[in-house]
Amino acid sequence: MAFGEFDLIDTYFTRRWPERDDVVLGVGDDAAILKVPEASELIIATDTMVAGVHFDKQTPARAVGHKVAAVNLSDLAAMGAEPAWLSLALTLPEMDHDWLTGFSHGLREICAYYDCQLIGGDTTKGPLSLTVTAHGFVPVGAALRRDGAKPGDWIYVSGSLGDAGLALAAQQQRVEISDSHYRRVLERLYFPSPRVALGQNLRDIASSAIDISDGLVADLQHILKSSNVGARIDVDEIPLSMALTGSVDADQAISYALCSGDDYELCFTVPESRRGVFDTAIARHPAKPTCIGRITSKAKDLRLERNGEVWEGMTGKNGYDHFS
Amino acid sequence: MAFGEFDLIDTYFTRRWPERDDVVLGVGDDAAILKVPEASELIIATDTMVAGVHFDKQTPARAVGHKVAAVNLSDLAAMGAEPAWLSLALTLPEMDHDWLTGFSHGLREICAYYDCQLIGGDTTKGPLSLTVTAHGFVPVGAALRRDGAKPGDWIYVSGSLGDAGLALAAQQQRVEISDSHYRRVLERLYFPSPRVALGQNLRDIASSAIDISDGLVADLQHILKSSNVGARIDVDEIPLSMALTGSVDADQAISYALCSGDDYELCFTVPESRRGVFDTAIARHPAKPTCIGRITSKAKDLRLERNGEVWEGMTGKNGYDHFS
Repeated sequence: MAFGEFDLIDTYFTRRWPERDDVVLGVGDDAAILKVPEASELIIATDTMVAGVHFDKQTPARAVGHKVAAVNLSDLAAMGAEPAWLSLALTLPEMDHDWLTGFSHGLREICAYYDCQLIGGDTTKGPLSLTVTAHGFVPVGAALRRDGAKPGDWIYVSGSLGDAGLALAAQQQRVEISDSHYRRVLERLYFPSPRVALGQNLRDIASSAIDISDGLVADLQHILKSSNVGARIDVDEIPLSMALTGSVDADQAISYALCSGDDYELCFTVPESRRGVFDTAIARHPAKPTCIGRITSKAKDLRLERNGEVWEGMTGKNGYDHFS
Repeated sequence: MAFGEFDLIDTYFTRRWPERDDVVLGVGDDAAILKVPEASELIIATDTMVAGVHFDKQTPARAVGHKVAAVNLSDLAAMGAEPAWLSLALTLPEMDHDWLTGFSHGLREICAYYDCQLIGGDTTKGPLSLTVTAHGFVPVGAALRRDGAKPGDWIYVSGSLGDAGLALAAQQQRVEISDSHYRRVLERLYFPSPRVALGQNLRDIASSAIDISDGLVADLQHILKSSNVGARIDVDEIPLSMALTGSVDADQAISYALCSGDDYELCFTVPESRRGVFDTAIARHPAKPTCIGRITSKAKDLRLERNGEVWEGMTGKNGYDHFS
């Protein structure tokens, strides 16, 4: 409960927001009442963004609104889920109408795009912070998980990696890049696209999946740990944008792709036997996945290769001299 | 994603926590996978607690863990729902093992008591704050709402009101009370009991319900607004604890009960035609509800009475000189 909570909700979070038929009762009671479709399982993800930690003062409010939904929808995408409902816990130091206008626009836009309804939440006074819990559905048993990768499965990533990390580095003046490249990568940092359609297309195809929020190396290792397998990655196959390769040297670009977070692409594995179905299913997908390596039987061992040899590009330089 | 997130989850939030059969996959993937029972609707509530706003430094960590779940379970209770799952977004300034031990114990105790499973969440670095999203079930169409009160319905509250507000006032040295009364009311401030069983018993009986988090006056007005009705309350019928009546004078005690929050009792309305069923259903309930008044047809008008006359106890004194 909080300062002008009801006016705030009424002004920013009710009019012209998407409404779904499976919401019996949304914002405005002690809790929301929802219908889960038959023969479905419910998928629930929660992510928090804290001012000064996950975004800074110069981040546009509209980007904050977009991103706090996007990072949660990305978790749903990694499970192969169809998004349905979001709840929002919003902690604000004061009533800032400009910020709330921008924030609510950003959140409403992405909700409308993915047909997600805001079903409730809480507004409180305190240091700026946002927590979203996202709810979606999968057919029973069809959810993608981290623990299904098998030796011999092919490893894919969607889109391209490293742009968000480059944007952050440029913003913090750790690297100098051109204005046009900066605009391009900043868009990816501020307005990531959760791979919702791709995730759903991967049901019955991928043996495991995760979204890349902490960098390919960190996130792929979650798959390796959960599945008790290893991986070989050909670093020259990792998809990189022209903005990234045009801004830093080749090995640096690969390092961004491997280690910087916030890309919200999917990393997933496809068994050899499903590769034909997969190629057909994703042929026309806008964030076309790229095959970057293969799962091995050596548990938790992540081997980065170039031309079949261990890639030395990062050894020592960034302190990432081993990955197992 | 955060500082030592995986060790933190592993150490404090996985071992010896309740596990439910309807959780296909809990903590540890991008999202949880859940089964909602057939012929049920899903009920979702979200509440945030911010350090320095909703609790202070002297609040025991175990109480914070209990209360952040309790306030959400209280929302589910007010809908008549059976609790099932919680997700937790925990923002911490630093790894404080003593605090985390106490907090996780408090949270686990209440989860175990209500057979609730922690299904996921997020841990981040930042100013201390907690958001819980609670999920529960009701049979289709059976949820209690705020908008069903009709003129002539009887108004009830469970337990007793005002103790938590007295505890806060005593803590802030706005009032002096005896040690034994203080211990008693502090327990209610720190460890509120959500009226989960009562809420479920009220399905098919109550015409509306809400939990009292902001004080009877504020919360009853939500029912009046949503149902487009008014209410007459006999202030002398409001249930007060001996700790409260033994600590302040009679009109002050009523004022605490009417205006202070954090009691987490239920306020609900029962149609005359359901009163017999109701009396049977709640006869042996530990937080026995008390009838305090009646719904009227005068929209949004809340009339506080003593012996049929307008009660003047609060007029002017606290600025609450009208309630409509």
